[in-house]
Amino acid sequence: MIVEVLAVGTELLLGQIVNSNATRIGERLADAGFDHFQQTVVGDNEERIAEAVGAACGRADALIITGGLGPTRDDLTREALARAAGVPLIFDEGQAEALRLRWARNGREMPDSNLQQAERPEGSTLIANPKGTAPGIRMRIAGTWIFALPGVPAEMIPMIDDEVIPFLRGDDETVVASRLLRTWGESESAIGERLADLYDTSTNPTIAFLASAGEIKIRITAKAETSDEAEALIAPMESQIRERLGARIFGADGDTVEVVVLRMLEERGWSFGTAESVTGGLVAGRITSVPGASKVFRGAIVAYATDVKERVLDVPHAVVIEHGVVSEAAAVAMAAGARERLGVDLAVAVTGSAGPEPQEQPVGTVVVAVATPDGTRVKTLRLPGDRERIRTFATTASLHLTRMSLLGIAWGSG
Amino acid sequence: MIVEVLAVGTELLLGQIVNSNATRIGERLADAGFDHFQQTVVGDNEERIAEAVGAACGRADALIITGGLGPTRDDLTREALARAAGVPLIFDEGQAEALRLRWARNGREMPDSNLQQAERPEGSTLIANPKGTAPGIRMRIAGTWIFALPGVPAEMIPMIDDEVIPFLRGDDETVVASRLLRTWGESESAIGERLADLYDTSTNPTIAFLASAGEIKIRITAKAETSDEAEALIAPMESQIRERLGARIFGADGDTVEVVVLRMLEERGWSFGTAESVTGGLVAGRITSVPGASKVFRGAIVAYATDVKERVLDVPHAVVIEHGVVSEAAAVAMAAGARERLGVDLAVAVTGSAGPEPQEQPVGTVVVAVATPDGTRVKTLRLPGDRERIRTFATTASLHLTRMSLLGIAWGSG
Repeated sequence: MIVEVLAVGTELLLGQIVNSNATRIGERLADAGFDHFQQTVVGDNEERIAEAVGAACGRADALIITGGLGPTRDDLTREALARAAGVPLIFDEGQAEALRLRWARNGREMPDSNLQQAERPEGSTLIANPKGTAPGIRMRIAGTWIFALPGVPAEMIPMIDDEVIPFLRGDDETVVASRLLRTWGESESAIGERLADLYDTSTNPTIAFLASAGEIKIRITAKAETSDEAEALIAPMESQIRERLGARIFGADGDTVEVVVLRMLEERGWSFGTAESVTGGLVAGRITSVPGASKVFRGAIVAYATDVKERVLDVPHAVVIEHGVVSEAAAVAMAAGARERLGVDLAVAVTGSAGPEPQEQPVGTVVVAVATPDGTRVKTLRLPGDRERIRTFATTASLHLTRMSLLGIAWGSG
Repeated sequence: MIVEVLAVGTELLLGQIVNSNATRIGERLADAGFDHFQQTVVGDNEERIAEAVGAACGRADALIITGGLGPTRDDLTREALARAAGVPLIFDEGQAEALRLRWARNGREMPDSNLQQAERPEGSTLIANPKGTAPGIRMRIAGTWIFALPGVPAEMIPMIDDEVIPFLRGDDETVVASRLLRTWGESESAIGERLADLYDTSTNPTIAFLASAGEIKIRITAKAETSDEAEALIAPMESQIRERLGARIFGADGDTVEVVVLRMLEERGWSFGTAESVTGGLVAGRITSVPGASKVFRGAIVAYATDVKERVLDVPHAVVIEHGVVSEAAAVAMAAGARERLGVDLAVAVTGSAGPEPQEQPVGTVVVAVATPDGTRVKTLRLPGDRERIRTFATTASLHLTRMSLLGIAWGSG
């Protein structure tokens, strides 16, 4: 089964947004075990969309199209599919009614232009979109299955998972299983060297590396006729990698660092809070992205102004004067203040200088302190990159230092 | 001048990395005024790269290829270009010497495998790569200019800026200018209807729509021989759109809502803080992503647990008992508490139920309050989608309601 992806949108060609849809679909196609040899992007132009559809039909068994199904005039995927298939667009009365009902439920009257979302090429089938107004379209052109889906990721991804992949699965009997091992604290090349022989010699399962914000992920993927067989191929490889990397691995699959930290705190019966300056609330934002975080997480104090550090976090004025706010003394005082003020067992504090202008310390200086009933640790990091990258890395690092404190692992060099 | 982009790399197809190279090249091509109608991604496969090159040569005046120029066995762009052009690969002795010197300068001996980076298709020219070892390749196939560049962004981008764009510019004198108008509060289809005739009839400038988290952006793009002429084409279209959309437009170009809010507060001399529950710090995180936010922003209190709302934000216990924490009374009390506790002029408070389990109110219920020296406003929103989407929309909405309070605009229906 060869599957291609066609993303429609002039904003992609203009570089206004990144084509993360193609990335996320590619990941899912790989997980499903389909071959995926080509991705294409074209703008909001009926003729060029139709040409790209025709070309893909000559190469692939299935084509997933994203974008161009909205209610405005530059949404042209429906027209382009009709043109590529040589059929007319028809008006789907049932879909029109569904659209009207959806708008009415939200207490609003539907603009007439939205009725174009009730059109579909003759011979096509609509695919339900539980998260939005534009339904998807499934049809066959020259023997190739076409799936046209909305460009909004929150709508498109569930349709891929619940409709497209199961449909293409059909009676394809190959099963793919994979395991994601998450590491922190070592570079991609260092991890790569530790696993070089496994990487070079393995064919089934295969391994691959992915780096993001200081975390290196290792993906093990196996194909077999049953899930059990695929898992059995993965198991020995996973054991070998775990043996070599040890505590560098902090989680598998969906165990992000925020999930791991929340689980450890819950097991220990400790409540959690943050005191943030340079990260401006991003640590708390990451933690609260996890459903059920409220079992453990009580709150955060973002003390951006110096006197808020003093007034709300009780950082002593003398510490500010003597050491400055980007200092280990200040981070320790912030963590202690957050424990007290939020009434939490464990508090992590982050202060630093993210630029573009240096604040007391050179840009990239970030200080993390973790205070628990068992004591306090503190560490100064030097992070590379621009403001956004420094803030992202500082957020990830503070969560990992929290995790290592809970495990009693030395913080070492970060 | 029609330019296409071909990215080479199996890791792109597997979804292991995002194709941000294409985004960045697209941005540069748009700035340079070149037409850019298609992007393609293929894996590390000589035959498929060669086929994609051939297809692009049939459509475009120039093709920029990224990736596949490294020293490993899966770097196949050189071979594929030779195949597409029907010429042999030749060994460039000068380049081999340059590679050896580069390695020697770093005190290391070059592995033999790196010599493949000294090969190039007959008739091609090498393009200097000041930031790395793999030179680029320029050649002509079937009348189309081909530029093969490394996939590493830090090497590739300077080669685009310093070599490819100036080369293609030649004596092409076209200049492109664009204006991005940002709106909030109305659906994409409603905005589309208001501008339908402009969209249908305009050719230079053109207009396009882009939706994200409740904001609809309108991009006006014009081509001319000089920047002044291009701007002169944009001006009347911009005036017309501004006249029709009025206060729905909140900013242009880089004026995100967080930038606009900070600027308005600074002009007014007001300090700013947030009190967050459902957004868990994301509003503060967005605000502090702007360099210089500290001139206005003092801090945030993320009160996730109910008793933190009472203890740190002084939300009266009676309000919690009588109205619950997802209520207008609670949001108003949170905003008042944040003003007091953070010592700020304006505080925005956000509470709500983001799911997956409902908290007091149905999932998607979000309450925003804005408290200023002039009074307090509060509003209950019903937001669609999952936890992530609800939190993102709540963050954007709270910033817009803050902006509208500052402007004295009624909050209306959101």
